[in-house]
Amino acid sequence: MEKNISSAVIKRLPRYYRYLGSLLDNGITIISSRDLSRKMHLTASQIRQDLNNFGCFGQQGYGYNVELLYGEIRKILGLDKTYNMIIIGAGNIGQALLNYINYQKRGYNFVGVFDKNPKLIGLNIRGIEIRDIDTLDEFLKTTKVDIAVLSLPGNNAKPLINTIVTNGVRGIWNFSHLPIVTPEDVVIENVHLTDSLMQLTYKLTEKEKGL
Amino acid sequence: MEKNISSAVIKRLPRYYRYLGSLLDNGITIISSRDLSRKMHLTASQIRQDLNNFGCFGQQGYGYNVELLYGEIRKILGLDKTYNMIIIGAGNIGQALLNYINYQKRGYNFVGVFDKNPKLIGLNIRGIEIRDIDTLDEFLKTTKVDIAVLSLPGNNAKPLINTIVTNGVRGIWNFSHLPIVTPEDVVIENVHLTDSLMQLTYKLTEKEKGL
Repeated sequence: MEKNISSAVIKRLPRYYRYLGSLLDNGITIISSRDLSRKMHLTASQIRQDLNNFGCFGQQGYGYNVELLYGEIRKILGLDKTYNMIIIGAGNIGQALLNYINYQKRGYNFVGVFDKNPKLIGLNIRGIEIRDIDTLDEFLKTTKVDIAVLSLPGNNAKPLINTIVTNGVRGIWNFSHLPIVTPEDVVIENVHLTDSLMQLTYKLTEKEKGL
Repeated sequence: MEKNISSAVIKRLPRYYRYLGSLLDNGITIISSRDLSRKMHLTASQIRQDLNNFGCFGQQGYGYNVELLYGEIRKILGLDKTYNMIIIGAGNIGQALLNYINYQKRGYNFVGVFDKNPKLIGLNIRGIEIRDIDTLDEFLKTTKVDIAVLSLPGNNAKPLINTIVTNGVRGIWNFSHLPIVTPEDVVIENVHLTDSLMQLTYKLTEKEKGL
């Protein structure tokens, strides 16, 4: 099962995971690749190929065991572990993320929120006190943090990268638009919300052509 | 040039677009596929394949004309047009988006923001007054809106879909997690921020295995 899985498949996994989770919530324990394909807007053979990658073979004429499949994907996505996270930048995006992720609770523990704005420092959002960004280094020296969320402008984020990585943070979820170059052992996921908006305007344009 | 382009290529286009834009900002007018590939973390042959899709052929030993390529991708993504947008839900996500998109200005015009919270209605954010959600139907009957952003919980979004699509809105940028089924001529782009976080935890898990 330890093969190299294409990044396109990996990108689809959260969707499988979300959908299987909603099936479980609704008490559905078995699903055929045909039903799965309809919901996921993929062909049934694509579904089978994707899931075979992980050694998940549906039973002919029977289907996939939803719970097993969900558990397998959960493990692949690293969601069977817990992660200590901090948010750097307590503006709208930072607060929205805190909301968002807390709401979806899956082993993400927010252990700190930081900002440089004196009006925000000391405030409590969702039970977490906003700390002075100047205390970040000190905080990281005493608290294990796995993931740092950068929800502040790139220029402000830049001087913090060194502090973050030298203190052992291994994952950066980057909303700052700062192109980050880090040591080999740190992973980064960059988010550009407007990329998704561009996909929408692309589809709108395609539709228009077809009219 | 009117071929069917794979969705994987389409998903990469915003990244090309952003990167070429930053080159232009820095006065760079020519780029080789090798340099482009290094920056985009794709192979040079992948880059050539991607761009050939759009009839953009670099000149051997010379490279791509950045401005032409940028203009071509801009057109493909539908960014040579302007879009009237409304935001439904003026919470953190709604306000963050207003911020975010305004900052990146590319022909997106916010013409209205709506909420049901009496504490928000009437307030001004970034120069736009927050309107009562009950006035949405009336608003849409008199104002041309191309894209509606759903930045409110799915349960609240559900009863609004009909109002939105019957009034001619053709694009929905959906942050609500509501699975939306709409008429053929409406396009939807669903955003699940946690999908991106799951990509990060996947990569962290892979790194750990490699250690």
